[in-house]
Amino acid sequence: MGQPGTYRYQIAARDVDFASRPTLVAVTDYVLLAAGEDADRNGFGVKHLNADNWTWVLLRFCIGFENYPVQGEILTVTTWVSDVNRLMTTRNFTVTGGEGRTIGGAVSNWAMIDRSTRKAVDLSQHLAYADALVDRPSPVAPPEKLGAVAPARTMTHRVAYSDLDFNGHMNSLRYLALMADMMPLEQHRSPVKRMDINFLHEARYGEQLTVGVREPAFEIVNEAGSAVCRAQMEW
Amino acid sequence: MGQPGTYRYQIAARDVDFASRPTLVAVTDYVLLAAGEDADRNGFGVKHLNADNWTWVLLRFCIGFENYPVQGEILTVTTWVSDVNRLMTTRNFTVTGGEGRTIGGAVSNWAMIDRSTRKAVDLSQHLAYADALVDRPSPVAPPEKLGAVAPARTMTHRVAYSDLDFNGHMNSLRYLALMADMMPLEQHRSPVKRMDINFLHEARYGEQLTVGVREPAFEIVNEAGSAVCRAQMEW
Repeated sequence: MGQPGTYRYQIAARDVDFASRPTLVAVTDYVLLAAGEDADRNGFGVKHLNADNWTWVLLRFCIGFENYPVQGEILTVTTWVSDVNRLMTTRNFTVTGGEGRTIGGAVSNWAMIDRSTRKAVDLSQHLAYADALVDRPSPVAPPEKLGAVAPARTMTHRVAYSDLDFNGHMNSLRYLALMADMMPLEQHRSPVKRMDINFLHEARYGEQLTVGVREPAFEIVNEAGSAVCRAQMEW
Repeated sequence: MGQPGTYRYQIAARDVDFASRPTLVAVTDYVLLAAGEDADRNGFGVKHLNADNWTWVLLRFCIGFENYPVQGEILTVTTWVSDVNRLMTTRNFTVTGGEGRTIGGAVSNWAMIDRSTRKAVDLSQHLAYADALVDRPSPVAPPEKLGAVAPARTMTHRVAYSDLDFNGHMNSLRYLALMADMMPLEQHRSPVKRMDINFLHEARYGEQLTVGVREPAFEIVNEAGSAVCRAQMEW
């Protein structure tokens, strides 16, 4: 049996938008940073997996807000793994802000893949992992499995150098940024209440993506017509 | 007479590119963060100026590298203001890395404007400012004044929500990211040796920009054909 880990991050000036509110991308980034730190603490972070040429892949994520964070606020992210099966694990998060006010909760589903074969690694065989489980329920409903979207509006984006992460794929948070950019600017004057996102395919350098929206649903498809990422945002 | 200020930042995982090297955007961001912190320390930071409805505007910037920083490295940025005249001030930076190794130096030129009239504020009348001056030369040659570019390759970009800063204009570093994206991916396997950038016009939400390059020169123009930003990068 494991213990939850707690990590702190301060919302920086570079994290805010034109309305001086932290972007959803920035807040999600801090939550995922806690996932990485906690995996390192438990001995199954990316730096440990590299020896086996394995890596974590984020499949689905959701975040719900009771109160949206503000610039300068220190976020306390508590995270724990509640479930693991052969193909997927569930990592949970609670987020509190200044003076302990509740910000919200998040849930993520991850797979582990072999970087050379791109195939899933059987998590049930990864023993150190089972030791980290914490018997505590998820703080919000799990990430929804999102269906195809018939977009009302679209734009295109070619995957560029500044979109890439250290794996050479488009950074997960860049999908979210492109989707947020599809909403009228005025929508961003209100904070998001809940966001669900599914990652379905990796996008690589030079690929042309089409970003579509039919509120509250978003979908990014590649040139072959495959869905790369879907999301749903509630304001 | 003032004293230089020293600030420390650690290169984070989210700052690196596909080659696991910190992006030029991320390194420049840390250097400019030190400018903001040091202005706050001296009583003329953005938060002090807001009372007068004034703000700083970055006109030109350059950064030169003897050694390019690496992921996880703690950057020590020392900064001081060496010059001020009616319309412009010069702020300098030296950057060292782990175990004190020299990273490089940077020089920036700033104006102060009244946010309501968008006109320059006479810096020579701003007395607290003169007290902050440090009699120490710039560590590298000052930012070059860059001329117009006849581009060999172009791309377009419409200014989106995620490009905006808290002033509602396109974030200065987003120009730099767009320019970096114009280079072939393989170019980014080598670190930049020096970058000069000039900021000429503000870009606003919804404007369509054209990003052009004729190596080593870059230029971004708006729909009216005015240059918004020019840069030069040496690899």
